[in-house]
Amino acid sequence: MHPYQSLTTHLARYEQLESIAAVLAWDQQTYCPPGAAEGRGAQLAFLAGEQHRVLADDRIVDWLEALGAEELDATQAASVRNIGRQVRRARALPQALVERMARLSSDGFAAWMAAREANDFGRFSPILAQLVEAKLEEATLIDPSRAAYDVLLEPYDPGTSTATLTPMFARLGEGLRELIDAIAEQPPVEVSFPAVPDDVQLAWHHRIAEALGYDMNTGRIDLAEHPFTIRLGPADVRITTRVHEGDLLSGLGGTVHEAGHAMYEQGLPHLPGTMVGEAASMGLHESQSRFWENVIGRSRAFFDFASEQLVAAGGPTISAEALYRGANRVTPGLTRVEADEVTYNLHVIVRFELERALFAGEVSVDELEGAWNAAYERLLGVTPPDARRGVLQDVHWSSGAFGYFPSYTLGNLYAASFGHTLLAAQPALWSDVSAGRFGGVLDWLRTQVHQQGHHVDAPELVQGVVGDRDHVADLLDYLWSRHGALYGAVRP
Amino acid sequence: MHPYQSLTTHLARYEQLESIAAVLAWDQQTYCPPGAAEGRGAQLAFLAGEQHRVLADDRIVDWLEALGAEELDATQAASVRNIGRQVRRARALPQALVERMARLSSDGFAAWMAAREANDFGRFSPILAQLVEAKLEEATLIDPSRAAYDVLLEPYDPGTSTATLTPMFARLGEGLRELIDAIAEQPPVEVSFPAVPDDVQLAWHHRIAEALGYDMNTGRIDLAEHPFTIRLGPADVRITTRVHEGDLLSGLGGTVHEAGHAMYEQGLPHLPGTMVGEAASMGLHESQSRFWENVIGRSRAFFDFASEQLVAAGGPTISAEALYRGANRVTPGLTRVEADEVTYNLHVIVRFELERALFAGEVSVDELEGAWNAAYERLLGVTPPDARRGVLQDVHWSSGAFGYFPSYTLGNLYAASFGHTLLAAQPALWSDVSAGRFGGVLDWLRTQVHQQGHHVDAPELVQGVVGDRDHVADLLDYLWSRHGALYGAVRP
Repeated sequence: MHPYQSLTTHLARYEQLESIAAVLAWDQQTYCPPGAAEGRGAQLAFLAGEQHRVLADDRIVDWLEALGAEELDATQAASVRNIGRQVRRARALPQALVERMARLSSDGFAAWMAAREANDFGRFSPILAQLVEAKLEEATLIDPSRAAYDVLLEPYDPGTSTATLTPMFARLGEGLRELIDAIAEQPPVEVSFPAVPDDVQLAWHHRIAEALGYDMNTGRIDLAEHPFTIRLGPADVRITTRVHEGDLLSGLGGTVHEAGHAMYEQGLPHLPGTMVGEAASMGLHESQSRFWENVIGRSRAFFDFASEQLVAAGGPTISAEALYRGANRVTPGLTRVEADEVTYNLHVIVRFELERALFAGEVSVDELEGAWNAAYERLLGVTPPDARRGVLQDVHWSSGAFGYFPSYTLGNLYAASFGHTLLAAQPALWSDVSAGRFGGVLDWLRTQVHQQGHHVDAPELVQGVVGDRDHVADLLDYLWSRHGALYGAVRP
Repeated sequence: MHPYQSLTTHLARYEQLESIAAVLAWDQQTYCPPGAAEGRGAQLAFLAGEQHRVLADDRIVDWLEALGAEELDATQAASVRNIGRQVRRARALPQALVERMARLSSDGFAAWMAAREANDFGRFSPILAQLVEAKLEEATLIDPSRAAYDVLLEPYDPGTSTATLTPMFARLGEGLRELIDAIAEQPPVEVSFPAVPDDVQLAWHHRIAEALGYDMNTGRIDLAEHPFTIRLGPADVRITTRVHEGDLLSGLGGTVHEAGHAMYEQGLPHLPGTMVGEAASMGLHESQSRFWENVIGRSRAFFDFASEQLVAAGGPTISAEALYRGANRVTPGLTRVEADEVTYNLHVIVRFELERALFAGEVSVDELEGAWNAAYERLLGVTPPDARRGVLQDVHWSSGAFGYFPSYTLGNLYAASFGHTLLAAQPALWSDVSAGRFGGVLDWLRTQVHQQGHHVDAPELVQGVVGDRDHVADLLDYLWSRHGALYGAVRP
């Protein structure tokens, strides 16, 4: 067998195990009975161990070496690069650490759920400390020469580091404060909606997600504490959401966000075993979810369609204008997933600063709740009244996903530049969206982004789509033109 | 490491894979999107291959051999026997056949669903023919000296064969015909119930399943086309059921049946890697489900409780007597899972005869629908008007589970003898049941059956509980005393 064929056949086993673990993870967060948590953790640890065994197999090194001497086409070259990266990380980690990490992720999720229920960070902090310690050990094993946090960032967004993020986030943070301050001087946008029952909201979400292009033949929508998207197999990409009777728009935003992720997954090229048929980075993944959620899903045109669909789903008549105003109010608040588009990135900056400090040893897990609250006061001017609305609000740390948060803001930055480029290419964009015709947007994303898979890394892919653009400037321009305009704020 | 420890540590991997496959199977039958069927099949085939690899590992033979020369305690001896049986079967089968079989099971399930939808046996028969062929190949590889059907029966109920079942089923069939004929001479039992909405029925099922003792902390109830019980982990045993607005009692019977299976699973001893902490046979498993469903769950006393719970679940007031009469009407019908207790075993006998003939080459898959209809005319006096209510009604064949059906009737036979023995031990049984106190029954089953695991085979286990009893006589006595009495039929 040719080494490329050996390599991809072998890696297909890895992907099979990964998708099997995804079924278990999906169930864990949707329907799994509470008493089953421990056993589920053991199952996931077992699978993580098997995945690691496949990835750390010595033969891969030989195949990669043999392929280094060959003429490769673009997909093969990308495959060798992507597999090489993952294999180098995997081979640095002993099997025992991988299984311990998987077990901790699963136990961490259960502890996080319990801590939220009890509204007590102390129920989560001991296991969080273990997670931090394990990830620190992992980072040191992978590359002792770099800051641990940089090593942890890398798999989510190859090429990203604190050195590139810090000045970008600083410039963005400054620009956002300027906009927020200008908005604060204007009269508030007041709007309120009637309570809409859960089942009507869910029917509304389903109609909209399908209209956007989320293929329900290979997908589904369930309820979960923390909305997420997950690929359970080659033709099985599911999303979860949540609904609150008294909050019509936050649930919808979550569904559109996850549908954006899911459509990216559904549009990836089918290249099993290559590690090329997958997202180029988590920042790019978030650019897809945030693009649909915000650029499209909070536009004035979108609410023409959404308003009509709400009635069709058995809900009340609410004008598109009211929905638009409700979806674009700017209020520095406590919760990232409920944040408006403008303040959202400040929530991310809080987490980026804390994660960096945590792994630099500048903040301990015991000090984290205090540091969280202090950062919210400083950056958003609000103080969390309790852990649930503070340090316990995100699921990420419970599974050891440190370094993911910056991807959200990278996603917003990319999405802003995509928006600019798409509108230039499709002048009829807003009339299409207003009429519920999303095919043009999806086709453009399919061609420009989804079908590219992971042939090149995200920065190069984005540059290929939008050219040389300043993403921070694009995002700030976009936010001024939407939120600044809504409030009548004037840009200095 | 001591060989027993090596053996059980190794087998724990097998159990881990088995429970992981169960999560995928559960999802496949509950929430899996239609387009994901093919990928799910590949995942299950992959896991079946891994399980087979673990079970066919050469080291097991060495460990078993080493243990043959040692003093073993009862659990160890049972473990060596149970593992030895499974290993001998596994080693007879090539990996490729195992993976093909897993793939066929999964594809078969999808084809069966589609065929039911289309009400067309022709959509299922090509894959059924492949399933029969693969199982025939399997049986021949395992033991070419015995009839294939006997080889297929064995894993469900070790010690059972067509030679023991045929005369037992013949005697039972005769006795049942006598009772059915006597009932047919009496005026029919007429009773009808109001339509009860699905959500009320489900709430009713939940209340009852929990009252019986099904632990919802480690279980849950979902809807599925074909009700089933499945263990997804050491503390995760789920059931599915179905409800029909116009048929109050068939859904409830299904839930109580599956809860009976689930309580058995929840009560098994925790002996990982030994193959002793599992059901002694499928016949014994069915004795638990059928005991709860029928002996308890169709008793007059039970409906005192169920009637009260229906009101508590938001349903209508229906008298216990009416529910009892409704649950014990005897009507030779088309559908096994909706059959009354008396005619139920005739449905099983039809399948037993057809399966035996299929594997003896006396009937082909193409002739199966005709043979099915003819057998129904002969044994039950009814003719299926279509495939959905005929040959397509059961899920079993779609996954290649040939040889399972006799377990249902074995279960009824064992359950009748258990009922006789329990009532002698607990004279207050019916007043307890009437008041919704099921703890005494469950404790008795826990001690006598569940906690025994698979130390001894089912016939020996049952004999230890009930002594030397004629199960056919016990079942016929029980049916005459309940249904004969209800109809005022006199035993000749």
